[in-house]
Amino acid sequence: MAFDTPEAAEDAYYDALEAGDLDALIAIWDTGDDVACALPMAPLATGHGEVTATWQKALAALGPIDLQTRHIRWIHAGDMAIHLVEEMAPAPPGHPVPPGIYATNVYRRFDSGWHMVLHQNSPMPPPPGFSPPGAPGEPPRP
Amino acid sequence: MAFDTPEAAEDAYYDALEAGDLDALIAIWDTGDDVACALPMAPLATGHGEVTATWQKALAALGPIDLQTRHIRWIHAGDMAIHLVEEMAPAPPGHPVPPGIYATNVYRRFDSGWHMVLHQNSPMPPPPGFSPPGAPGEPPRP
Repeated sequence: MAFDTPEAAEDAYYDALEAGDLDALIAIWDTGDDVACALPMAPLATGHGEVTATWQKALAALGPIDLQTRHIRWIHAGDMAIHLVEEMAPAPPGHPVPPGIYATNVYRRFDSGWHMVLHQNSPMPPPPGFSPPGAPGEPPRP
Repeated sequence: MAFDTPEAAEDAYYDALEAGDLDALIAIWDTGDDVACALPMAPLATGHGEVTATWQKALAALGPIDLQTRHIRWIHAGDMAIHLVEEMAPAPPGHPVPPGIYATNVYRRFDSGWHMVLHQNSPMPPPPGFSPPGAPGEPPRP
């Protein structure tokens, strides 16, 4: 897949997650060794092979992932673009809406167009009184 | 502070943390509204004022922060440079070494030299059997 802008690559990324489409998701990534992907509480994946494997596991475990996103910052300079967003998952049945997750998405322009080269998630602090399903107790310390 | 390379800015960043020197730390950041800083379990700070305030609180609460770093990926293109590192804090007395934390550091070249524009931390999965001090129980779900 070739994308003319980093925004088009990002739209395709969240569309592929919503569809649970591994092939479409992986086609957005650069195919080199310099890519890296840090999903919540999963081992860091570096290089195209590990990134493909980590998404294969995540989609197999979770199915399609319908995330709403809230724009926080775009930084765009030359052949690099960085988007900091908040990702919000729907509430599990009978549970309150979980806290959002911060995501940094880094895109780079290659001869073939824009591709994702880095994705990092990190948890937000939970709101007061929130207990995630299956994991009551106080939040982990930094 | 002016830095000729993103590597020099990063060295100064970890030196300032180790010294607990807020002024030196803040001088590394760009002074604009597009900066953002996501520390573990802290509200996201956006813009120079919030980033200054979040570091002021963190240093007041924690004192000097002596992190060892392990290089994972540098991506450098034109006026942007991104470093993905593992940050390792020393073990608290009587406790095992805590799991490392992934950090993405984004630097941008301005007329005044290289400055930090984004810092994001995210926790690594704890090793089997690890219980952080004061927070026993299973790790939070993604």
